[in-house]
Amino acid sequence: MAEKIRVTVWNENRHEKTDPRVSKIYPKGIHGAIAGFLSEDRDLITRTATLDEPEQGLSDSVLSATDVLVWWGHLAHGEVRDEVAAAVQNRVLKGMGLIVLHSAHLSKPFVRLLGTSCLLRWREAAEKERLWVVEPGNPIVDGLGSFFEIPHEEMYGERFDIPVPDATVLISWFAGGNVFRSGCCFLRGKGHIFYFRPGHETFPTYHQKEVQQVIRNAVRWAVAGNGPAMHLGASEEPLEKI
Amino acid sequence: MAEKIRVTVWNENRHEKTDPRVSKIYPKGIHGAIAGFLSEDRDLITRTATLDEPEQGLSDSVLSATDVLVWWGHLAHGEVRDEVAAAVQNRVLKGMGLIVLHSAHLSKPFVRLLGTSCLLRWREAAEKERLWVVEPGNPIVDGLGSFFEIPHEEMYGERFDIPVPDATVLISWFAGGNVFRSGCCFLRGKGHIFYFRPGHETFPTYHQKEVQQVIRNAVRWAVAGNGPAMHLGASEEPLEKI
Amino acid sequence: MAEKIRVTVWNENRHEKTDPRVSKIYPKGIHGAIAGFLSEDRDLITRTATLDEPEQGLSDSVLSATDVLVWWGHLAHGEVRDEVAAAVQNRVLKGMGLIVLHSAHLSKPFVRLLGTSCLLRWREAAEKERLWVVEPGNPIVDGLGSFFEIPHEEMYGERFDIPVPDATVLISWFAGGNVFRSGCCFLRGKGHIFYFRPGHETFPTYHQKEVQQVIRNAVRWAVAGNGPAMHLGASEEPLEKI
Amino acid sequence: MAEKIRVTVWNENRHEKTDPRVSKIYPKGIHGAIAGFLSEDRDLITRTATLDEPEQGLSDSVLSATDVLVWWGHLAHGEVRDEVAAAVQNRVLKGMGLIVLHSAHLSKPFVRLLGTSCLLRWREAAEKERLWVVEPGNPIVDGLGSFFEIPHEEMYGERFDIPVPDATVLISWFAGGNVFRSGCCFLRGKGHIFYFRPGHETFPTYHQKEVQQVIRNAVRWAVAGNGPAMHLGASEEPLEKI
Repeated sequence: MAEKIRVTVWNENRHEKTDPRVSKIYPKGIHGAIAGFLSEDRDLITRTATLDEPEQGLSDSVLSATDVLVWWGHLAHGEVRDEVAAAVQNRVLKGMGLIVLHSAHLSKPFVRLLGTSCLLRWREAAEKERLWVVEPGNPIVDGLGSFFEIPHEEMYGERFDIPVPDATVLISWFAGGNVFRSGCCFLRGKGHIFYFRPGHETFPTYHQKEVQQVIRNAVRWAVAGNGPAMHLGASEEPLEKI
Repeated sequence: MAEKIRVTVWNENRHEKTDPRVSKIYPKGIHGAIAGFLSEDRDLITRTATLDEPEQGLSDSVLSATDVLVWWGHLAHGEVRDEVAAAVQNRVLKGMGLIVLHSAHLSKPFVRLLGTSCLLRWREAAEKERLWVVEPGNPIVDGLGSFFEIPHEEMYGERFDIPVPDATVLISWFAGGNVFRSGCCFLRGKGHIFYFRPGHETFPTYHQKEVQQVIRNAVRWAVAGNGPAMHLGASEEPLEKI
Repeated sequence: MAEKIRVTVWNENRHEKTDPRVSKIYPKGIHGAIAGFLSEDRDLITRTATLDEPEQGLSDSVLSATDVLVWWGHLAHGEVRDEVAAAVQNRVLKGMGLIVLHSAHLSKPFVRLLGTSCLLRWREAAEKERLWVVEPGNPIVDGLGSFFEIPHEEMYGERFDIPVPDATVLISWFAGGNVFRSGCCFLRGKGHIFYFRPGHETFPTYHQKEVQQVIRNAVRWAVAGNGPAMHLGASEEPLEKI
Repeated sequence: MAEKIRVTVWNENRHEKTDPRVSKIYPKGIHGAIAGFLSEDRDLITRTATLDEPEQGLSDSVLSATDVLVWWGHLAHGEVRDEVAAAVQNRVLKGMGLIVLHSAHLSKPFVRLLGTSCLLRWREAAEKERLWVVEPGNPIVDGLGSFFEIPHEEMYGERFDIPVPDATVLISWFAGGNVFRSGCCFLRGKGHIFYFRPGHETFPTYHQKEVQQVIRNAVRWAVAGNGPAMHLGASEEPLEKI
């Protein structure tokens, strides 16, 4: 009876075109892999969009028909047009959910919404990552155990230059000696934003069950309610006699 | 298909027995009024419990069959047995939702869970209260406008001695010159706690549509997910070779 | 023995040039008034800067010699060059404190740092404002009573479209029926940001003792410590054998 | 000119009496070691107190002459009298700072102030701990580098069952595969509380320079300002005509 959630999975889709290691792991692209498992859920209507499509895949009509936007980018952050980044930012402030994956920590919409550099430490050494649940009451960790492991991943390490998250639900341990806040919730305007660390393009991370579970949970969490519309900025009459 | 939410509305139910003003407004008790409107929702299974019932209405079997507990108390906070308060606290930490209404800011379970005095300023002058939505993206304000008014209420004013809430969704304006954080979210253990200010016993506050809407929303918000069970406190083997 | 705090009070300084009501209240400009009372404090070295000075008053050498920047703007937000706004943002992320006053809620540096619209409700009706202390343990309210009043001010009301503050220390009551989070702390990068609501140009707000006290306190609070410098963004070697 | 900060270092002082490994590392007790390095700071007046002293070392006169209380306990949490724990809690709510060290995560004052179980995972395997700075702008990490290491420590691991901290400044990596929020700030009433993880009794942790630096910083951070006294709980007259 409830309305279905309209999800758009956006990907810059560049590694997939040039790096056979990536296209072998993700023959339909990273966006295709993510849309693939989300499409199994009957309460979701999932579509994909990519950078090289007209209007960079994110026309007004696409954005206005999107409840939750999933974003993967890496090589081509700079090619995303400022107007597109601003349109995404504005839609989030009005209530569109945003799931920011892995290297999209430097994507234009995320950096604009957070206001900090969003820089971090990193290392490509195919090391083990173990993600610990630190907020077991948060719905984004539904169905997980106390932790889960990814056998080979790129390392992201603290200091991650972000504002204090409204909730930090996962913290990663890396074999090489680092830690990272890997699952971070932010509320901006009416929009729910979730940053989720894993997903380097040369590893089959998005084929892993626990990673898919987190993304599935986060999509539901990120749907806006129908709280009051904000008609702000205009002068108003007093509600009481002054 | 989703399982129904099991709600228990607990009330000390003392004003209703001795003050005809109260029993006239709430002939079935405050608990009866709240359970009444919640019972209209088909995804909820609502029961009531009161202080003078056996085991103060909150036996282990009642608590373990409760997903969300709604609490109203005022005169008889001190009569609630410490064991009952501890049992409620422990159930919340394990995931039971808790909606704390009005004068229950001084109830034993709430004070134990927050750790502060929970004192505040107050005045009984039947003055106007206007509740402003400050977090329009929070599901607890679904269906509200930018604000709503209660024509006559007891005043509660800042400083409210609570920890910084995880989210503050409503702030009240009072005709007599005070302000108050009237809708406050707290996560404790796996349990979601919502403090909601309105509801003095001598006013028909719980018959008002917006007040009912907030309580309805809060009940859904307070349901725990199925995040990992926490088996804490025992020594553990290393996960990596040291 | 401690090093002195270097404060720069920046003002667009436009109302003062064209509106005799303003120049009568603030003959040395709003910046002059604020710098005036800060200059009484011997642990501060206070200077001013204004929009119409070379490099809009904020050359690299000024910014790099500023520990805490105080910002007042209203008419001319759009004239502040994007490079200047970006330079302020970057300095804040590296540790410069920022005190954002009144209508500077729409200043470029603040909006860039917060990432939201920063819009709000407003009304010019010279109404009474009463500011309640909600976090008495925060050093920004040192020396205040439980509340203080400003006899005539512009109204700013919720919803104020900002991220959840790291601390909310003051909430305003307005005679016309509104409330507002009037003292809000944000940490961005290593920089401490304090938004303080009062200060409409046609009222003598910055001559009021309590308002001066809050600004004095906030300047000290906003000074960065000497935590670790962040050399982020470059690839790193593992700290442990992988 | 500023008044000196009065610090009381409390220790249950039991391991030191029975375990020669501990008394060898800390011949003057853990309290003596901590008071020792704090005593080098001329802006502090440092004293010690222990469980087996009269009134468990924390008479009203001691507490009322303490600006910041440092607490170490492990074996004897249960022996601390409820009245003493309540007195500490009340003093914190009124503004006394509290530094809670290592196994004092289960001390009565801390558990009462936080309201959760405060349980965690743990392991005694003398493994390496690396503490990463995650909030470089927080004064508690002044003087540190990006991280520091402790060669041998007991492991504490997530999930740590605490409320979301007001700030999380350090996160630990452990060789055995765990992570932990090792430096956590909480504001309760007017009191600043800092939980700092390191300090197992069989390791010379409190002789390490970086550990001492954090405790030194935290003591200054925890000093209350002179914000308004809270006279709460009594009925009040309206400030405006109703």
